[in-house]
Amino acid sequence: MIFSKQRAWLAVVSVALMISAFVLGRAALQGQADRWYPSRWGANDQRGAANRITPAKILEAKNLITRGTIYPLGRVYEAGMPMFGTRHYSLRIPQAFKISGTNQPIYHDELVSGELGQIGTQFDGLGHFGIGDLFYNGNNRANFAQPEGLTKLGIENVGPLFTRGVLIDVARYKGVAQLQPSYEITAADLRGALQRQNLAIRAGDVVLIHTGWGTLWMKDNAKYGQTCPGIGVAAAQFLADAEVTVVGADNWSVEVNPNPNASLGGPVHQLLLARNGIYLHENLNTADLARDNVYEFAYVFVPLPLKGATGSPGSPIAIR
Amino acid sequence: MIFSKQRAWLAVVSVALMISAFVLGRAALQGQADRWYPSRWGANDQRGAANRITPAKILEAKNLITRGTIYPLGRVYEAGMPMFGTRHYSLRIPQAFKISGTNQPIYHDELVSGELGQIGTQFDGLGHFGIGDLFYNGNNRANFAQPEGLTKLGIENVGPLFTRGVLIDVARYKGVAQLQPSYEITAADLRGALQRQNLAIRAGDVVLIHTGWGTLWMKDNAKYGQTCPGIGVAAAQFLADAEVTVVGADNWSVEVNPNPNASLGGPVHQLLLARNGIYLHENLNTADLARDNVYEFAYVFVPLPLKGATGSPGSPIAIR
Amino acid sequence: MIFSKQRAWLAVVSVALMISAFVLGRAALQGQADRWYPSRWGANDQRGAANRITPAKILEAKNLITRGTIYPLGRVYEAGMPMFGTRHYSLRIPQAFKISGTNQPIYHDELVSGELGQIGTQFDGLGHFGIGDLFYNGNNRANFAQPEGLTKLGIENVGPLFTRGVLIDVARYKGVAQLQPSYEITAADLRGALQRQNLAIRAGDVVLIHTGWGTLWMKDNAKYGQTCPGIGVAAAQFLADAEVTVVGADNWSVEVNPNPNASLGGPVHQLLLARNGIYLHENLNTADLARDNVYEFAYVFVPLPLKGATGSPGSPIAIR
Amino acid sequence: MIFSKQRAWLAVVSVALMISAFVLGRAALQGQADRWYPSRWGANDQRGAANRITPAKILEAKNLITRGTIYPLGRVYEAGMPMFGTRHYSLRIPQAFKISGTNQPIYHDELVSGELGQIGTQFDGLGHFGIGDLFYNGNNRANFAQPEGLTKLGIENVGPLFTRGVLIDVARYKGVAQLQPSYEITAADLRGALQRQNLAIRAGDVVLIHTGWGTLWMKDNAKYGQTCPGIGVAAAQFLADAEVTVVGADNWSVEVNPNPNASLGGPVHQLLLARNGIYLHENLNTADLARDNVYEFAYVFVPLPLKGATGSPGSPIAIR
Repeated sequence: MIFSKQRAWLAVVSVALMISAFVLGRAALQGQADRWYPSRWGANDQRGAANRITPAKILEAKNLITRGTIYPLGRVYEAGMPMFGTRHYSLRIPQAFKISGTNQPIYHDELVSGELGQIGTQFDGLGHFGIGDLFYNGNNRANFAQPEGLTKLGIENVGPLFTRGVLIDVARYKGVAQLQPSYEITAADLRGALQRQNLAIRAGDVVLIHTGWGTLWMKDNAKYGQTCPGIGVAAAQFLADAEVTVVGADNWSVEVNPNPNASLGGPVHQLLLARNGIYLHENLNTADLARDNVYEFAYVFVPLPLKGATGSPGSPIAIR
Repeated sequence: MIFSKQRAWLAVVSVALMISAFVLGRAALQGQADRWYPSRWGANDQRGAANRITPAKILEAKNLITRGTIYPLGRVYEAGMPMFGTRHYSLRIPQAFKISGTNQPIYHDELVSGELGQIGTQFDGLGHFGIGDLFYNGNNRANFAQPEGLTKLGIENVGPLFTRGVLIDVARYKGVAQLQPSYEITAADLRGALQRQNLAIRAGDVVLIHTGWGTLWMKDNAKYGQTCPGIGVAAAQFLADAEVTVVGADNWSVEVNPNPNASLGGPVHQLLLARNGIYLHENLNTADLARDNVYEFAYVFVPLPLKGATGSPGSPIAIR
Repeated sequence: MIFSKQRAWLAVVSVALMISAFVLGRAALQGQADRWYPSRWGANDQRGAANRITPAKILEAKNLITRGTIYPLGRVYEAGMPMFGTRHYSLRIPQAFKISGTNQPIYHDELVSGELGQIGTQFDGLGHFGIGDLFYNGNNRANFAQPEGLTKLGIENVGPLFTRGVLIDVARYKGVAQLQPSYEITAADLRGALQRQNLAIRAGDVVLIHTGWGTLWMKDNAKYGQTCPGIGVAAAQFLADAEVTVVGADNWSVEVNPNPNASLGGPVHQLLLARNGIYLHENLNTADLARDNVYEFAYVFVPLPLKGATGSPGSPIAIR
Repeated sequence: MIFSKQRAWLAVVSVALMISAFVLGRAALQGQADRWYPSRWGANDQRGAANRITPAKILEAKNLITRGTIYPLGRVYEAGMPMFGTRHYSLRIPQAFKISGTNQPIYHDELVSGELGQIGTQFDGLGHFGIGDLFYNGNNRANFAQPEGLTKLGIENVGPLFTRGVLIDVARYKGVAQLQPSYEITAADLRGALQRQNLAIRAGDVVLIHTGWGTLWMKDNAKYGQTCPGIGVAAAQFLADAEVTVVGADNWSVEVNPNPNASLGGPVHQLLLARNGIYLHENLNTADLARDNVYEFAYVFVPLPLKGATGSPGSPIAIR
């Protein structure tokens, strides 16, 4: 490696200019009104809106349990379920294991592989979706996205969620069993449906949107996955302003897909996860709640604590 | 394929003898008093003791929630955790996926593989452990253990569990922080500890045993996995007679390991799962409950509904 | 467990009858002319027709190399390739690993999961396919099919294959670019095509069948996997009589699928693998050989030595 | 998003400075004598030193086959084999699949997961190891390291390798059965050992280094993986200057580990793979070749064509 004197000078000047550029650029950026971080829970927070679940909130949820009825809201994980892109899910039962013993002990287990936090009914964590290189709380992916797991924002930080749940039956409000493909649910739709249901959202709630799209699950998977009705940016902002903890839906992306603004990809994911620390719960089964007009309930979900994962599988439940 | 006349006759006689043997043998077997199936919930039942969780039981559990405090009872799933035999657990974060969009959408997911229902904190389903070829309700493994998942007794049949939980702090009762390796917890130990705690077990309860063994988790994995203190057959029979739904512990097999009777392998698994349809919950963290003297609580767990799986990962919670 | 005296007697008689039945039945069975085991290489052999590859055979193959041209015969393993049943193939590149060092070391690896010996271009081992419970050399699956790998007949026993290869271009012989779906290739077809090619098969050869079906690969996967032309039982017997080592083809099962005899499933697999210890090589790309009229060559393949596996992925090569 | 006038100016100046810095910096960098790309095979090449295997080279290798003896050089893939970091390897045999048919067809397959190109005997591809963000031919990882596979430098580009192989028995040359832990093999060692063997390396050869370290494989895995003797940077440069195609060894990193220069991580990987497009073959079994004094042979290896993979498993063979 041989530097000529001239080249060395070029390098020195170049580095000096780079530093100047960085300092000035940073000043310019920090002047922006659009500073979405640090989060309202501090620069080091990794739990986002899960912080809204206080003992008082837990007791509020508990008091909604009056009948002792549980609604499982999750789908069964099985071969052939709708899957995004080239993700996969595989389960196999190996040959039985025989243990020595006069009592003839024998057992089965199962081999599972897949993008576990992002298939089937899935709960999106704060390390899942970003804006350029930045994720919740301004964390740059270069600093936390490691091969063996996220070193920040991993799903194990969320903790158990036991809180008030509210179902917003937008399909019913619009007078249909199923919203149209790519129908964008507006803030007005949410307000109207809540008014019909005579309910208000409160801070810390989990809000589930019933679009009717879920009836396509394992019935018409091609249609299910191609598009979906869902909330748009304005409706998401309405929910963020209401300070909810989780937004779920009976579709695969909670948000409308594709976005009516063709230049945008996943803007609701960015708004809720990155900017507001609010979680998404996708591919839910909200049909039974809707059928029974159960609009208010205790929502319970404990993310599977896979260290450094971006999301969690699992079936949340609604209890009345 | 050429049969001589003589050989054909041998074959005919042989088959006749075999049929006679089968008929007589069956009669002899059916005379046994030790008929552990069909189950008390009928010959077609696949849920076992989960049937004990009624709306009334759910309301009983709900009424135990008075403070709004949640204790997560599950371990974090991570590389290096104690693992049985040649099971494995792997999690990787692939390169980020970039979606087209002026809003710079980008996301991570995770690739997971492992014996998912039987690693880390795990909930044993009724298809997990058998007696010879027979599992819960007398199901012969030849009829339900299929490569793509169990066609009977799969974990997806269990459904959500929300019920009264009772912690039995056997370590405390015995005046130690941690029971000795391979200490067999007796029925008298359970009765004595319950008396100390001034509590009774009721039908449908989940009973968690605190042995103190859990403090070895990720501290001394070699010792943790080599043996463990746990309930013996008599203690398990005591719990089965009490008609519980789940028995859990802060060790890796709930039952004492190895069994003091060296000729037996996993007899408690057989007694609880196969004969009584009672589930096991292994590798729990019961230390916080024990520390706070929380002996009675709402136990909540929703098995991950992996179709045809033998068990489930996941973190149960105790709520007070 | 309480036996009445009468029941005990029933049991004794039953067992006595069972033993008699077994002894007589065995005698009848052993009288069968259709004893396909032990194998010609002895009762303990695990390599089957790979035993035919002697140093002399290797030198025979070597002498076919005159131009220094290599034809890769394997398909690329990739998402979306044709796959049997619910098998899967997944490859992901995790986030880069950075090692400390002033030289900025960094590396990538890949996470792969799938039914590795039975997807894409695949070489079927002797533990893959059986007749009832019996596999090559009469091995009963109860004795060797263990959860952590086959304890007999695993692919690691095969060893490297370097031998004379012969392409039989049946499509060309029949005057078509691609044989019809489910066309059964007969022994006469093989003889006729060999005569046209002016070639004879010799003991220890690998025989590759060109059907033209391979052009559908990644072009029309649905058609590719639904049926295929291939050899029938008689053609397979012709090849077994010729004492070949491997039979390969540019289709997914070497044999015609479905079999013209609707009551049979995989009879050629049984004939070649179980009865004759002859391997199958599926999903090959024989198009280049056919195009260049290369009918005789050195065939080289080293099965991936996955201990206890049923087959092997990998690209065999033909050298001229 | 509200910009004050002042902030906007800062931003404009900042961008201007950044562009200047980039232009100057690039000029300085390009002036370096240490430009290791584009490769000698052109800026778009993805095969590196595999380009050295010409028909003439294949015929040269073929002529080394005189006895018809094959030496398998790969290790068996099995549970418990030495593994780098948190990589894993899992193989399971699922329950048998039964197909309908009067001929009782039944089959097994296997579920495999692991970092397949980088475990056990492994062949490192050009996308495996880099210098900062740059890999072979100056490819920036941001441009080709995609989650679903490398879009450049994937192992499927290599193609079959059939060429002259040379074993350099450095252990024998140094008069030991096994080199010391972390012994750095020098260029003088290689020259000396070649002289003892009375052999010269030629362009396109595969060079295998026998260190004796391989005898620890599955005997003392802890020692095997902790360090290893291997070639240093100078020896690697000697081999690169000799224009070889692959460098292999009976250790886990070909190169000495850790490097005697503690500030360097994997410098030989960088020199061979990134700068020279020369492949590495690790965890080989060279003991049989060394025992038989087989120093010259035909080396055959066909990388498993996993699209976009960083390396390949598989057993190369040496033929004499």
